[in-house]
Amino acid sequence: MNLTLPAADDFHVHLRNDDRTPTAVAAVRAGGVARALVMPNTQPPIRDAAEAKRYRGALHSQGADFTILSTIKLTADTSPEQIRTAAHQGILAGKLYPQGVTTHSEDGVRDFMQMYEIFEAMQAEDLVLSVHGEVPGAFVMDAEAAFLDVLAKITSDFPKLRIVLEHITTRRAVEAVNRFDHHVAATITDHHLALTLDDVVGSRIQPHHFCMPVAKTPGDRRALIEAVRSGKPSFFSGTDSAPHKKADKEAAQGCAGIFSSPYHLPILATLFKQHDLLPRLEAFTSQFGAEFYRLLRNRQRVCLVAEPQVVPPMVGKMVPFWAGKPLDYRLIWE
Amino acid sequence: MNLTLPAADDFHVHLRNDDRTPTAVAAVRAGGVARALVMPNTQPPIRDAAEAKRYRGALHSQGADFTILSTIKLTADTSPEQIRTAAHQGILAGKLYPQGVTTHSEDGVRDFMQMYEIFEAMQAEDLVLSVHGEVPGAFVMDAEAAFLDVLAKITSDFPKLRIVLEHITTRRAVEAVNRFDHHVAATITDHHLALTLDDVVGSRIQPHHFCMPVAKTPGDRRALIEAVRSGKPSFFSGTDSAPHKKADKEAAQGCAGIFSSPYHLPILATLFKQHDLLPRLEAFTSQFGAEFYRLLRNRQRVCLVAEPQVVPPMVGKMVPFWAGKPLDYRLIWE
Repeated sequence: MNLTLPAADDFHVHLRNDDRTPTAVAAVRAGGVARALVMPNTQPPIRDAAEAKRYRGALHSQGADFTILSTIKLTADTSPEQIRTAAHQGILAGKLYPQGVTTHSEDGVRDFMQMYEIFEAMQAEDLVLSVHGEVPGAFVMDAEAAFLDVLAKITSDFPKLRIVLEHITTRRAVEAVNRFDHHVAATITDHHLALTLDDVVGSRIQPHHFCMPVAKTPGDRRALIEAVRSGKPSFFSGTDSAPHKKADKEAAQGCAGIFSSPYHLPILATLFKQHDLLPRLEAFTSQFGAEFYRLLRNRQRVCLVAEPQVVPPMVGKMVPFWAGKPLDYRLIWE
Repeated sequence: MNLTLPAADDFHVHLRNDDRTPTAVAAVRAGGVARALVMPNTQPPIRDAAEAKRYRGALHSQGADFTILSTIKLTADTSPEQIRTAAHQGILAGKLYPQGVTTHSEDGVRDFMQMYEIFEAMQAEDLVLSVHGEVPGAFVMDAEAAFLDVLAKITSDFPKLRIVLEHITTRRAVEAVNRFDHHVAATITDHHLALTLDDVVGSRIQPHHFCMPVAKTPGDRRALIEAVRSGKPSFFSGTDSAPHKKADKEAAQGCAGIFSSPYHLPILATLFKQHDLLPRLEAFTSQFGAEFYRLLRNRQRVCLVAEPQVVPPMVGKMVPFWAGKPLDYRLIWE
C-alpha cells in the first residue's frame, strides 16, 4: 500500500559547513524532509542570530532546497542579549552540549548552574532549550540516565522553559519525559528505533552503527518503540543524521554519527511497518514536533511508494545508514 | 626498579595459520612468553591430536621458538575416541565455542547437553575443558553472566571435570569462579584489566579495543583487578591475543580480537604497577596457570627493565594493543 503524507520535519540534523555539506543538504530533501532544525555545532560553531543567518545563506548556496530552522550553540560565553536577539530573529532553539560528550563538544558546558542566567533569558523569551542529555565522564551506558537528574533540576528551576531532550536512547528517558509536563519533549532518531548495542559491538564492531548516545539494550529500544506507539505528542522525529566520511568512520578512532538523512522516510516507514506503527508515522514526522515548536504544519506532501529498494553502499563520500539493507518503500515528492 | 621473573605462560593465544602467523609467533616470544596454549579455531580448525601435531609443526616452521601447548576444538562431531587420543598425546585442553559468539565460531555448539558424552570422556581422561563463556544470542553486555548458569550445570553434572572459563570480563564471573571449587579457573586478558566499554564506544569507536567478550563496566574491570590482587590461584594470565590486520579491524564490520602479544609482559607490568599489583605478577603469569594445567614451571627468565618505551603504531600488518601508549618497561630475555 502506498502512503501519502505530509513531508517530514526533521527536528535534529547536522549539515556541517565544509565539503560534506552539499551531500548532506541534498540528502535532507531526498529523505522526504521539508523543514530541518539544523544543529549549530559546526566548526566554528553558530553562536548567535547573525552567524545563524550567514549559515542559512551558506547552506542555501550549497543547494539546500528546504526550510532551514536555525539553532545557536550555548557556551559559557553566551550572553542573555544574544538569547533575546536570537529569539527575536526567529532562532528556534539554543543547543546545549555537555563538554566532551560528542562531536565538536570540546567547548561544551561542564557546570549547568553556570547557565542559569541564560536559561532565565530563554524562559523569558520562550526560546527552546535543546539538550544533548548525557553526563560527561559517566559510563557510556549510564550517561543518559544520569542526566535525567540534571534535567529534573532544570525543569524544577525553570518550570516554563521548553526543553527538548534530544535523541533519547533509554527506557528511563522515556519514563522521565512521560513524568514531566508538556514543556519537556524528546526527539527519537531512526537508528535508535532500529539498533541496540549488539549492532555496534556484537560479534563484529560496526562503526556505521555508532553514534552518541550509543544504542542501548533491547529493552531500551522497545521502550522507544512503545513511546512512538503511545501517540504522545512529547515524542517526535529528529534524525541526528550526521555526515562523516567513510574513512573517518572506519578508523582507529572512528567518529560518532550516523548518516540516515538520504533514506529517512523510507527507513522509518519500513521500521514502522515492521512494528505495526504506520498509523503513527504522520504525527511522529510532521505534527508533534511542529506543535512543540509552534510552527504551522508544513503543506508539502510526499508519497511512499510500496516498492522495494536497497540502500546503496555510498552516498557521496558517506556510507548511509542501513547500506545494503532492503527497504519497503521509495519516496516521491508530490 | 628492574624486575626479573620467570618467562610467562600465555594460557590463551590465537596464532592462526596463514600469512599473519609469522608475525603472531614472533610476537609471542617478544612479549616474554615461553609457553603458549594455542587456540584451535584456525581455518580449518584443529579437531584432533593429529591435526594439532601438524599445526605445531607448521607453527615451528613459521618461526615459533617457544613451547606450544596444544588444544583441540570441540564440535558436534567430536568423538570420545578423539578425546582419549588427544589426552594420551599430550593435548592440554578441548576448547568449546558457543555458536557464533566470536571469530570462527560458526561451527560452535548450540546445545551444551549434546556434548555430555564428550564431557564424560574429558572428565575420565582429565582433559581440561576450555570454554568461551557467552550465551549465543544474549545481549552483548549480559552474554557472559548468562553463561554462568550453563557453567553451574556443567560443574554440577561433571564435578571432577577441570574447566577454564576463558577471558572473563565481569564481576559476576569473578564471583562465580570464587564460588566453584578448584576445578574451575579463569583466564584474564591484559586488555580486560585495562579497558571498559567506554574505551570501545565512548566518544569515538575504537576497533583496536574491540574483542569478544567485549570490555564491560568500570565495576567489572575493578572486579578483575581485585581478582588478581586476591592472589587466588583460580585466576591466571591468558592474553587472548589475536592478530587481525589493520584493514580488517578498521572496517564496516570489524573483526573481534586484540593483538596484545608483542608487548604482553611490559603492558601487564605497567598495568600492575599502576594498581600496586607488581607482587602478584609472577604468580599470575607463570605459576597459577602451570599448576592448574599440571605443568612444571618453566625455567626461562626475563628481565623487565624499568625504561620507558612507546608501543609502535604497527607490528607487521597489525595494530598492536596500546599503540602509541607509553609503557614503563622494556623486556629482555635472560
